[in-house]
Order: sequence, then structure tokens, then C-alpha cells
Amino acid sequence: MSGIPHTLLEDLKKITADDRATTNETMLQQHSKDESHHTPVLPDVVVFPTTKEEVSAILTYANEHRIPVVPFGVGSSLEGHCIPLKGGISIDFQQMNQIIEVRPDDFLVRVQPGVTRTQLNAALKKHGLFFPVDPGADATIGGMTATNASGTTSVRYGIMRSQVRDLEVVMADGSIIHTGGLSAKSSSGYHLTGLFVGSEGTLGAFTEITLKVYGIPETVIAGRATFPTMKQAVDGAMSLLAAGIAIARVELVDSTSIRQVNLHSETDYLEQPTLFLEFHGNEAGLTHDVSFAQELLEENGSVDFLVETDSKKRAKLWEARHNLAYAFKHGFPGKEMMLTDVCTPLSELTGAVVYAREVIDQSGLAGGVLGHVGDGNFHTTLMFNKQDPAEVQLAEEVNAKIVEYALQKGGTCTGEHGIGIGKKKYLQKEHADTLPWMKLIKQQFDPHNILNPGKILD
Amino acid sequence: MSGIPHTLLEDLKKITADDRATTNETMLQQHSKDESHHTPVLPDVVVFPTTKEEVSAILTYANEHRIPVVPFGVGSSLEGHCIPLKGGISIDFQQMNQIIEVRPDDFLVRVQPGVTRTQLNAALKKHGLFFPVDPGADATIGGMTATNASGTTSVRYGIMRSQVRDLEVVMADGSIIHTGGLSAKSSSGYHLTGLFVGSEGTLGAFTEITLKVYGIPETVIAGRATFPTMKQAVDGAMSLLAAGIAIARVELVDSTSIRQVNLHSETDYLEQPTLFLEFHGNEAGLTHDVSFAQELLEENGSVDFLVETDSKKRAKLWEARHNLAYAFKHGFPGKEMMLTDVCTPLSELTGAVVYAREVIDQSGLAGGVLGHVGDGNFHTTLMFNKQDPAEVQLAEEVNAKIVEYALQKGGTCTGEHGIGIGKKKYLQKEHADTLPWMKLIKQQFDPHNILNPGKILD
Repeated sequence: MSGIPHTLLEDLKKITADDRATTNETMLQQHSKDESHHTPVLPDVVVFPTTKEEVSAILTYANEHRIPVVPFGVGSSLEGHCIPLKGGISIDFQQMNQIIEVRPDDFLVRVQPGVTRTQLNAALKKHGLFFPVDPGADATIGGMTATNASGTTSVRYGIMRSQVRDLEVVMADGSIIHTGGLSAKSSSGYHLTGLFVGSEGTLGAFTEITLKVYGIPETVIAGRATFPTMKQAVDGAMSLLAAGIAIARVELVDSTSIRQVNLHSETDYLEQPTLFLEFHGNEAGLTHDVSFAQELLEENGSVDFLVETDSKKRAKLWEARHNLAYAFKHGFPGKEMMLTDVCTPLSELTGAVVYAREVIDQSGLAGGVLGHVGDGNFHTTLMFNKQDPAEVQLAEEVNAKIVEYALQKGGTCTGEHGIGIGKKKYLQKEHADTLPWMKLIKQQFDPHNILNPGKILD
Repeated sequence: MSGIPHTLLEDLKKITADDRATTNETMLQQHSKDESHHTPVLPDVVVFPTTKEEVSAILTYANEHRIPVVPFGVGSSLEGHCIPLKGGISIDFQQMNQIIEVRPDDFLVRVQPGVTRTQLNAALKKHGLFFPVDPGADATIGGMTATNASGTTSVRYGIMRSQVRDLEVVMADGSIIHTGGLSAKSSSGYHLTGLFVGSEGTLGAFTEITLKVYGIPETVIAGRATFPTMKQAVDGAMSLLAAGIAIARVELVDSTSIRQVNLHSETDYLEQPTLFLEFHGNEAGLTHDVSFAQELLEENGSVDFLVETDSKKRAKLWEARHNLAYAFKHGFPGKEMMLTDVCTPLSELTGAVVYAREVIDQSGLAGGVLGHVGDGNFHTTLMFNKQDPAEVQLAEEVNAKIVEYALQKGGTCTGEHGIGIGKKKYLQKEHADTLPWMKLIKQQFDPHNILNPGKILD
């Protein structure tokens, strides 16, 4: 970038410390990519701040010199959020990983952005608490906040945006603000907290996050059921929602994915559309709910509903679901995975997943369908050779068709992975009328476009 | 106002219809106020649009001529939101009161802004659905969205902002946008929906609202318990939350309020701090929950826990809570009610309500304490004579002390009533650092400050 001073490294070392700013090639490469299929781009420098004051000084400096800045957690993004498209500074938050305060009586926790999900849950457990949002990856709370992550438990506990009570944000000009507070609700002015959640590092950098946490449920029951068809599996899931059953997770996995797990793990799961379930509550209520769930799933064609209460047996019951991404990633050496991500209204989900399966089969690409079907959110795992332009195009066409279908039905181009690089053209379709207003906010909050440039908006 | 053309009425009749724009004195007076204690101000004209196109034409016209515009539902605001502080046009949405579409399989409903809460629930009932947010008043959905209303059920179902999936908004320049969609979640760009919810008519006018709705619970149980002290009552409520019991409502009413109800209704409720409770769930789960709740409440000093399942008996059990505002309003002829509204972290609630009671008693004003204690949100009903400057000052001082206490403890100056006119000075304290960024958004979205000027921001 033209604006980058040749003293960049030295300047950042002065702001942080000699060993906390680096242009080491391996380090630059680690910060050039995420877990998506998007093409890596090297940052000019990686810096590891330890305080909000350092983050503020870095942003003030970057803003003055018009240097792009990309926040980095563990790089588990799936839409290229961490890729420094225009070079500049990658701010790695790994050294800001303190759990600042657990407030059990308030059901709140205050953390630094580099805290990971499993680290947080380990700390909460001793208070009988847990943080439910589970996107699969052991992402950082900062990253999960930036993409408005959700995942398997959102059908019960809500998405990341529902959990964030307060954000400490360093703005592009270096000023430090708090967007919320410690109360469970507020009607005090414009809701900036919700605006920053999901802003993908383009409006500010988070230095502290206050989250709602939950009591560990008295009883957890895991369940699994297979169905002759995808339609029956989805209808089965919908019947549980309609009945108001307290499901905490309801995951759909298609037969192609189960076959891939069997191939890879030498297991013999029934190769049929499968629902993986989890119920949270008190024992009496769950006994009722689970038996009611069984009735409903059987009405929708399942004949093999299994449940487990013991924690090890629960994990075993869910094993195929957990091994799924691994089975695809390691089952196709030399190929990359494009993980699509749309969300439709619940009533349109059956049509959307059946259509997605058809489109994948027509393309000739390998790929499974899986979904957080309680939210109408599903993914496909498209395996493609990034060196083969024809395969790249095929994968992109499949993605495009899945997105178009969702948009036509009133859904969204991304349920939880965010816009990043890959979904910008679909955001333009989905929110053509609101995009100018989003841009006005971006221009006001980050007038020199230093914050994660090239993400969400062009 | 200097910018208001003398052809205002004629111009608005051309945009709408002869009988849908008026300067009738009674009509102007009806639109000069809300249910708050704030001083009425007459609008120049009242207009009744029936379509988004008319709303767009009204705003385009107002923007061109720099005429203030105030959206009006049923005027149940408690912080002066509907008062046309600078005159101009009051847009009354009573003729935009259609329930556009119920989508039972999606758990969604699309409504026009003038639909009231009870009207909506009557329409949902035939689908086995309900809309839980219950601020007490039979407010319009437009008004509830604009103030981010919540109320008694938010401890279980969340606040207004949690329910809104999509807004059709007419912007100050007359452009019409949709902020969301029909899917249960999305990570598609900046979350403008959450920004408009709670914007109190200052960023745009809503012409359509899509809401999440819920299945009517299988079983509803109402409960009531009294306690020797406020501390024990609040601690009792907190013990239910900590145990993860599925309470759908948990309301605190202090002994002063119960005494007022007894005086007014010739009832003989025990004049002690009282919790009013409601449980939603399946019968087996609730039987367990309710008996566990009884244990916990008794541990906190209650000796008279009563429950009812039958709907008429449930209403009877809650009667004192429902009659409370009426008992104060009609018990002090010639006085107005200032309804304070703060929210604290849960762990600070006991201290806050005990402090509020002391401050009221010291002031010599009549007033009760009541609260949605599951959220840490409470109100006081301060009765004062608006013609007596000393009483006005006393009431304002009590309000100020309650707010200051909440802010000191990390709480908010308004849990659910919004900023409006009365809380602007406290917003400046609570969010001094974010206020400049709120103002930037306001300036961009409404450059001529025509939208509800003088509310939230100066």
C-alpha cells in the first residue's frame, strides 16, 4: 500500500514492545488466511497488543497513515474475514485473552476478545454456568462477536448478538467507547452494541466483551433419529418446534455425509438423513418432552429414535455429526472445502435442502448437506480443486444457486458465517435498499476506510 | 415553526385525502401528549396515512420544507415520545392497522404499525400462537418497536428488539427500505433492524413490522407469594433465576403499593412485599418447577405461596398487580404520576429497590415500587402536583437519585420506557462516549432533523 511508512515495524514496536510486532515470514503467512477457501494475502506486519491503550495507539497511528488494519483471533473464519486483502497490520488478540470478571449473580462474564469458547466454558463451569453459543470451531469470543456467530444451540439460546450486553470498542480514530452496560435490558439511545456485533472488524476493534451466561441445565439428554427422506427429517424437526419442545440442538445430516463418515471412520451408521438432538431442562419435564418428541418423530417416519443421558454416551451418539467436517476435509486430499451458509424461513427449509442436494448432485462435486435446522440454517460441504478453474466455477455456481434459492424465499445469504469477501455480491442483492445506509455508517465511523477494508462493503 | 408553509393542511390533504388530514382543535390536542407527565405541545396538523406510499410522500414533503414529523400510535408512551415538541406533523398510524400475514409454520407475523398488542394476540390465538411482549398498556406494535418495549414477560421471551425480524422503514428523504428478512437469524451486513428498534421515531417511520411469535404454552400456572422484607422478596426472585426455573413473569410489588390497592379496591391483600409469578411449560415440567419454586421462596422467608392453573383464578391471583397503576392514578385526584424506570445488574437490584423506597419516603411524596425483577428492571409511581413547583422538583429529585444509583452500579437510566424528553440528560451521563457516534448516525439518516426532533438527542 502506498501509505505504509518504511518505519512501520519500528513504529509498532514502539507502541507495543520489541517482541510484540513482527514481519517474520511464517507469522505473516499464519495471518494471511483463515479456514475459508479464499486466497491468502500477506499483511505487512503482525502486532500483538496486550491492552486497550495499545490497540488505541495502533489504530490512531494506522488512521493517521491510512494503513489497513485487520483484527485476528484464531483465524477460524469461513468467509475470509481475517485475510488482509490490502495488506497492512494484522492485530492478533491472542495476548488479550483474560477472563476479566465472572459475575455469577448477574449471569454475566466480562472477557478480553482473545478468550476462546472452550477457555470461557472451563472458567464458567466452576460457577455452575456455561456460555451456549457453539459455532463448532474453538473460535475466540472477539471473532464470534465480529461475525455474529451462532451454531447448534441457537435454536434454544439465541445467536451471539442476543448474548452481548456491552462492548468496549476502539474506533478508527483511536477513541475508546463502551456501547452497553451490565443490565439485562435497556432502551437508552441507539443500540450500537447490536450494530457492532456482526460488523466483521469494519467499524471498530473490540477490546472487551460482556456476555450473558446461563446456568448449566439440570439434565441434558442427547438423541438421534434417522428418516427415509430429507423431507421427513426436516418435517420431523419442525414438528418438535411446533410442539414447543425444549430442544437445545437439532442438527440435520444428510445420507451423503453419513456415508462419508462411515468411509472415513470405518463406522456403520445407517446411511439415511439423520437428526441429532439435544434436550436441556429438568428431569421431569424432559422425560415428558423426550417421549413426546419420539411420538412426533415416529409420525414423520423415523423408526430408530435413540436417547442417552450419560455424558460419554451422549458424545458417542453425536459422534457422526462431530466427525463430519473432518471426514470430508481428510477424505478428499488435494481438495478444498467451500462451506456454504444460508438461512431460510422455516417453512421453506425442506424445499431448500432438497434443492441443494439436487444442485450438488448435478454438479458432480462431492459434498454433504448439514444444518442447524431449528433456525432454518444449513450448510453444504462442497469439495473442489482450487487449481482447477472448472471445479472452482462449479463450486461457485452451486453456492450461487443455493443462495439465490434462499433469497427468493425471503431468507438470507448468510445465517452465521458473515459476508466477509465471498458474500459481498449476495449482500448487494439481499439488502440493495439498505446498503447505502450501511455505507453512510461505515463512512462516518471509519472515514479513511482503514478497518478491514474490502469486507462487507466495497 | 418558521419553515411551515401556510398551505400545509391543503398539501397533506392532496397527499392523503380530504378527511385524512386535519387541524381540528380536539384532534390537535389528542396528539399533543402521551401518558407521561410531560407538558403537551400541539402539532400543526394531524394526518392519517393508509399506505407506505403516503407515508413516503408525507416525509418527502416534510423533508423538503423542513417540517418536524412525529409518529403517533395510541399515545401510551411514558417519556413524551409522541409530543410534537417543535410542532409540525403528527402522523397517526391508526388507519394502518392491518395484520398483513400470519405465517404459523415460520412462527412469524407481518403487521402494520397501528396494530395493537391485544388485536395481534386475538388474531394469533386461532393459530395456537401468541406474541409475548407485554408492556401493560395496549400499545401499538409500531410504538412498542420504536421504544424497544418489554415488560412482564421479557425474563422468559426477551424484549421487543429480540422479536423484530424485519422492518419496513420510510426514511427522512422518503425512501423505503427493508432492514431484515424472514429467516430466524442472519449475519448479512450491519444490523440496521436493531438500530431502528428503540430509535423512538428519530431515524425513520415504520410502515411494516415482521415479528417472531410463539406457540401458546401447554400449561400456564400463576403464583403469588409475600415476604417480610423487600430484600427477601428480591432474593426470592433471584433464587428462581439461579435455579433455572422456567418463570415467564416475576413481578415485585411493594407493601405501599398493595396498601394503595387495598384502599382503592376495598380488598384485604396482605400489605407486604409481594411476588407475582407465572410459569409456562409442559405439565410435568411445571409441577416439578412450581414445587421447587415454593421451596426456594420459603427458604427466602415466604409462608404463603399460592398457585392457580385455571385462567380466571390466575387473573384473580394477579388482580392486585393489575390494579396497581389504576389505584395510584385514581387514588390521588389532581396529581400526576411520574413513572420512573431504571434497570440494574441483577446483583444490585435489592440495593436499588431498598434505596428507591427510602428516597421516596424521605421526599414525602406518595409512590409505590414495582418491578420486572427477573430483568433487574423496576419502576416507582411518584404522585405529584404539577401545579406545585416544589412537588415537581421533589419528584424530579427522586427520579434523579434512582437513576444515579442505577448508573453507578452499571445499570441503565431506562429499562423499557425509552429516552424521549425526560431522560436525555441521563443518556448523556450513561453513554457520554457513544453519544457522538449516535449523533453521526442521526445526522446521516435525518440531515434536516425533521424526525421527532428533540427526542433522544438534542
